[in-house]
Amino acid sequence: MKTSLLALAAFSLAAPALATTPMPRTLDQQADMALKSDALAWDFVEGITTEVGPRQAGTEAEKRGREWAMRWLTRHGFANVADEPFPMQTWVPGEAKAEIVSPFPQPLEVLALGDTASTGPEGVTAEVVFFRTVDELRAAPAGSLKGKIAYISHSMTQTQDGSQYGFAGPARWVGAGIAASKGAVATVIKSVGTDSDRTPHTGGTDFPQGVAPTPAGALSMPDARNLERMFARADGKPVTMKLTLTPRSLGTTMSGNVVGEIVGRDPSLPPVLVACHIDSWWNGTGAIDDGAGCGIVAAAAKHVSLTGQPLRTIRVLMAGAEETGLWGSKAYSAAHIDEPIAVGLESDFGADRIWRFESNFRDGNRALHDRIAKSVARFGVADSAIVATGGADIDIARDQKTGIIDLQQDGTRYFDLHHTANDTLDMIDPVQLRQNVAVWTQVVGILANEAGTIKP
Amino acid sequence: MKTSLLALAAFSLAAPALATTPMPRTLDQQADMALKSDALAWDFVEGITTEVGPRQAGTEAEKRGREWAMRWLTRHGFANVADEPFPMQTWVPGEAKAEIVSPFPQPLEVLALGDTASTGPEGVTAEVVFFRTVDELRAAPAGSLKGKIAYISHSMTQTQDGSQYGFAGPARWVGAGIAASKGAVATVIKSVGTDSDRTPHTGGTDFPQGVAPTPAGALSMPDARNLERMFARADGKPVTMKLTLTPRSLGTTMSGNVVGEIVGRDPSLPPVLVACHIDSWWNGTGAIDDGAGCGIVAAAAKHVSLTGQPLRTIRVLMAGAEETGLWGSKAYSAAHIDEPIAVGLESDFGADRIWRFESNFRDGNRALHDRIAKSVARFGVADSAIVATGGADIDIARDQKTGIIDLQQDGTRYFDLHHTANDTLDMIDPVQLRQNVAVWTQVVGILANEAGTIKP
Repeated sequence: MKTSLLALAAFSLAAPALATTPMPRTLDQQADMALKSDALAWDFVEGITTEVGPRQAGTEAEKRGREWAMRWLTRHGFANVADEPFPMQTWVPGEAKAEIVSPFPQPLEVLALGDTASTGPEGVTAEVVFFRTVDELRAAPAGSLKGKIAYISHSMTQTQDGSQYGFAGPARWVGAGIAASKGAVATVIKSVGTDSDRTPHTGGTDFPQGVAPTPAGALSMPDARNLERMFARADGKPVTMKLTLTPRSLGTTMSGNVVGEIVGRDPSLPPVLVACHIDSWWNGTGAIDDGAGCGIVAAAAKHVSLTGQPLRTIRVLMAGAEETGLWGSKAYSAAHIDEPIAVGLESDFGADRIWRFESNFRDGNRALHDRIAKSVARFGVADSAIVATGGADIDIARDQKTGIIDLQQDGTRYFDLHHTANDTLDMIDPVQLRQNVAVWTQVVGILANEAGTIKP
Repeated sequence: MKTSLLALAAFSLAAPALATTPMPRTLDQQADMALKSDALAWDFVEGITTEVGPRQAGTEAEKRGREWAMRWLTRHGFANVADEPFPMQTWVPGEAKAEIVSPFPQPLEVLALGDTASTGPEGVTAEVVFFRTVDELRAAPAGSLKGKIAYISHSMTQTQDGSQYGFAGPARWVGAGIAASKGAVATVIKSVGTDSDRTPHTGGTDFPQGVAPTPAGALSMPDARNLERMFARADGKPVTMKLTLTPRSLGTTMSGNVVGEIVGRDPSLPPVLVACHIDSWWNGTGAIDDGAGCGIVAAAAKHVSLTGQPLRTIRVLMAGAEETGLWGSKAYSAAHIDEPIAVGLESDFGADRIWRFESNFRDGNRALHDRIAKSVARFGVADSAIVATGGADIDIARDQKTGIIDLQQDGTRYFDLHHTANDTLDMIDPVQLRQNVAVWTQVVGILANEAGTIKP
């Protein structure tokens, strides 16, 4: 709270200075200023988490989030602010309870996974079968889980590049589907996370074609470890769980993509697309996922505009319904596929510092790649030969095979918080958030003033 | 989990060595061994949190906790193991929900405070009145909270000695009572804690004589900060909350004090009493509060016994129903007031390292005080002239005006976890836990072999 007030105070002091400075700052100066005193990104994420809070895709809360974001963009001078609607299949979580019935009765903290089925309010009570890995589950004989609850563990540690998500993620992404195909009445997983808090990590899960969704939930890390200790101490006695999850489908509802523009001097040039997503899971307030990302891209666009009108339009896309199936990204690409963009960038990995720059035009436009890499070196950002593939919300950049830049954020803490109730403003470090805005300002400013083709 | 298995392995290796060593270790050697490889305390706290879990005072879960502890004490060779029953007034928490209705609708994480009343399942909806401190609340005019929900904030930071609890605690201890006396229909407080997790801190609260208990709950720190930001952003519009808390009183139920002894060579000498409490709040698994404390005192007593039969009996008291009103400590003192003890010590401040030694006999028995202080210096424990007053579970030591020792633990992290769902085994550092056992072994060993009066 204190930090927030200080940050706002810093911005209030800076704002009149901007209004009275006769010459606009250079891009470098503006980025340096953002590093020291940006308060726009913080104001966005503080505002949306406080005034809206959770924004589950397809619900009225997400709609309030979009309306809030449009007001914010309008207030900060963005043009062509709009909510582009699309239909989606909407799922809401309901109640979630788990308890061990025997041999060691006690409650466990659980949350439903996205798009899973309900146990009904009466719950299901069944023996739990312990799988240390998804591969162990895959090896279980057909039909062997009939009438059972599958429990799937995994091992995940913190990594700066978030790469452990690829190893641990399948427990959530495909575990329930595999267990269901072998007859399980329900699945619980160890949360895909790296923390030790009683805050389960939700997220989406996929059931294979022809396999009806079952109830499935994630136990918090301490509860998962407790359950595993119970197996170690049960002396072979069955471990029985009562699981009550009451999610439901709302069928087709409307979501939308919020867009807004810093209009460029030459509207005939393809714009720079900077993206994030406006929805969040229901359990946190959507601060690091992805209020911060929206704050970062919007603040960067605004900072660039303060250096003078850019050559190209900068288009902000705050996609709807990312978490439950990338609905917004797909809808945006479908609607705008015939309007070429020059380059796409997305911020959706928390609010910690950017440590590496990647593009997909290093081979084809080395001069521009190197110029950008050099420009952000002073913020501690490393260059990389990795070919950028872009985030979830810029399907259009992949569909158009156009330029993509990835500004990689430090993900060490990200999976402590990802998809948990602890995804709140309190977890954002304002100093690292400002570094993001500075780097983004620098990169977007170069791109928006680049006359030549970005990815030839 | 891994740490736990390593610790158990270390103990398994150590145990046969103990059995075959012809000469018992000296007390110093035993304490040094405990520092390196004690697994008894860990085994206790892992076992009770895994096999029993939460142990709300006066409930069947607490009874299972007492039975578990008695089995553990018996298995480790303690004599005269018993459950000494006492009646108590029992309260259970029910459901807890809070949401802001306007101007910024969103759910908030809340837990009921102990011994508070129910809103009924339909909840109460009312305007929230913001008090930054208990003193601000005290200054509110009589009747001014009629029909309102009082919200009480405070400021609390981490301190090694836990002393901030004295400054911040009144928000919980007396806030709801003061608000009720001014007409509030309910009270919510900022949790008395030092963390940033979505895990509210419960705890007891007192209503003054003649003031009927109202519903009262604690918001998690992030939710409290969010609510405060809402006030800052509401432009004077009322902030309205719906609060649903359904705790209930079960009337009189039975709890009990678990006792067990290492019988001394001279049963005519007053025993050394080492205490902890066996109950916990319902939301965590009672690891740091106070499974660890029970593990520490029991492990220390056991280690002393392995150096040869002590002169005095060491009596372990695992008190029932500490959290909801020190019922066990009072019952123990009432039942045993005529059986003098030599000295009382309690462990109930987590599992982090002991950093300071205090006694209440430094003036009267300086030689013994100094001998103990010197003996634990090698574990990093400082001496102190502060007069020990003892913990909640050794009322009998205060009532008998006998010897008291306080082995002060590092409380820096304690109020991150205190009375939250995050009070789990995962938060215990096994290295620091072993340091506790080593220091306790050393101190209890000296006391149990002291022939003279401890506090003259």
